[in-house]
Amino acid sequence: MKLATLHHGADPDGRLALMSDDLRRCRPVADMTMQRMLDLDLPMARLEALAGPEEGFDPDQCLAPLPRAFQFLDGSAYVNHIALVRQARGAAMPDSFWTDPLMYQGASDGFLSPTAPITGQPDWGVDFEAEIAVVTGFVPRGASLDEARASIRLVMLLNDVSYRNLIPEELGKGFGFLQSKPRNACSGIAVAPEALSGWDGGKLHGRLNVDLNGQAFGRADAGADMTFDFPTLIVHAARTRPLCAGTIIGSGTVSNRDADGGPGKPVRDGGAGYSCIAEQRMVETLLSGAPVTPFLQPGDTVRIWMEDAQGHSIFGAIEQQMAALP
Amino acid sequence: MKLATLHHGADPDGRLALMSDDLRRCRPVADMTMQRMLDLDLPMARLEALAGPEEGFDPDQCLAPLPRAFQFLDGSAYVNHIALVRQARGAAMPDSFWTDPLMYQGASDGFLSPTAPITGQPDWGVDFEAEIAVVTGFVPRGASLDEARASIRLVMLLNDVSYRNLIPEELGKGFGFLQSKPRNACSGIAVAPEALSGWDGGKLHGRLNVDLNGQAFGRADAGADMTFDFPTLIVHAARTRPLCAGTIIGSGTVSNRDADGGPGKPVRDGGAGYSCIAEQRMVETLLSGAPVTPFLQPGDTVRIWMEDAQGHSIFGAIEQQMAALP
Repeated sequence: MKLATLHHGADPDGRLALMSDDLRRCRPVADMTMQRMLDLDLPMARLEALAGPEEGFDPDQCLAPLPRAFQFLDGSAYVNHIALVRQARGAAMPDSFWTDPLMYQGASDGFLSPTAPITGQPDWGVDFEAEIAVVTGFVPRGASLDEARASIRLVMLLNDVSYRNLIPEELGKGFGFLQSKPRNACSGIAVAPEALSGWDGGKLHGRLNVDLNGQAFGRADAGADMTFDFPTLIVHAARTRPLCAGTIIGSGTVSNRDADGGPGKPVRDGGAGYSCIAEQRMVETLLSGAPVTPFLQPGDTVRIWMEDAQGHSIFGAIEQQMAALP
Repeated sequence: MKLATLHHGADPDGRLALMSDDLRRCRPVADMTMQRMLDLDLPMARLEALAGPEEGFDPDQCLAPLPRAFQFLDGSAYVNHIALVRQARGAAMPDSFWTDPLMYQGASDGFLSPTAPITGQPDWGVDFEAEIAVVTGFVPRGASLDEARASIRLVMLLNDVSYRNLIPEELGKGFGFLQSKPRNACSGIAVAPEALSGWDGGKLHGRLNVDLNGQAFGRADAGADMTFDFPTLIVHAARTRPLCAGTIIGSGTVSNRDADGGPGKPVRDGGAGYSCIAEQRMVETLLSGAPVTPFLQPGDTVRIWMEDAQGHSIFGAIEQQMAALP
């Protein structure tokens, strides 16, 4: 099952559509939104019965699968990413970070469509973070790992946009990222886990491709070095409260260690590269004392996608250009 | 305009209803939810035209005005509350806290109805926080104070439930409250600001009553000692991103200084008392070196309400009993 959300007049929630496997055609489902489908926990057979005739699918015209959601919780499951952040600023990382997931409540009131511009002021340090995300059904408080695993309805890609230069002040206040994490973008297509050959019940294996201005920037394996899998992240989120249907759980920046356990090499040097600019800058800082790669400048483009074994795009591409705010 | 949301079968968003001034009767609006009303920015005249015949209103059968919302941002507008927290643990408070609002992204995927139990494990340190909250229409990124003020659609009361003993570890991780702030409760009634005689365009003046187990616990004036008014909080929230219609902005715990500028006296000693147990415990710590009042225990009840000049309840009462989790 592959799903998308189409523009539908002024309806902020759009209209649900079933996608063809090649992502070229779709079947809109009348009077149905992604949230409503999740609320009702509708099975695929029911959606098939409700779906209208097939029509062409234009990836530039779709919305995020959930154009707005009641909850977005973003983990930091690839602890290598956090270790790098800490190492670059000379801060020790508590051992607990390897056993207790970091997670924050992120903005969920609007998700950008996969080709919407990334906006910000260049001096905010605008960055992308390529992530895997899952969408859950209802999760009861205190859910077990098995309940958490069974709650995963869909998998998609997510670009967690960050204003790096605003983060230190915001985190310094102790209450989270707020102003430093604006709206994020999602892949146009969300896929049921059982339709993903790379899904092992907890992680999505496969190469997460990130190009910056047409150059290979990241080629990390999303199934490698993921310290906390999605069921573990969901259990963490639901420890003290239930999660509504349609909760989006992000993996945090996908990040691979180097084969020798080091921080990872650029793609041009045969490494897995990076899924955000900050990580490349941290490695540059570690190697030469200062970052070299700038954050996103107006006109820069980032492309994030995954392919199946046959080289076909699984989720469609997130392809965004940075645009300066006036 | 006074509004409520009624149970409506299995619909998680319930059904919108117009309330009579005395809160005893209501007129359900067919096929309408609070979120949809806010999305469409429907004026009162239109709602009046759509509303059905009057029926009795049972406060035990209503939901939160927004049973789930796309965004909840909770400020700490009564800086006296933060100063007390800091003072009690011997930490200096940065001067910037008086000029730059503290705010976090809170769970919005479910709000408790006004009489739903507060659940938690007693050793989590279960506490209430009586707050004023507003519901906004759409707020553009970079909104001005005037735009922010004009975006306020509704005012209500909110009980920000906190697990005090989980907060230090969660905040210590630097990513916010997550596990230490579960679902919150709202008053059953939300009121348009123009219908509130205590609304001055930025704050709600009047006594916020809090009873703990039937005893007066808090009698703070919500219009006093509010360092950041709601338009200021909204401008802060919208600095780097727009806010969707239906965003809930909380004031943080309402807290009054004493007449002599001190931390405030208990109601029984003629003071304004406290809007959360933690604050009373902090004052006890400052006075005698250790807290005396326990956090909520199973069976404890908290009642939060405001009255107009005639002694009539404005928002209905939040009235919750603590229940231990199994």
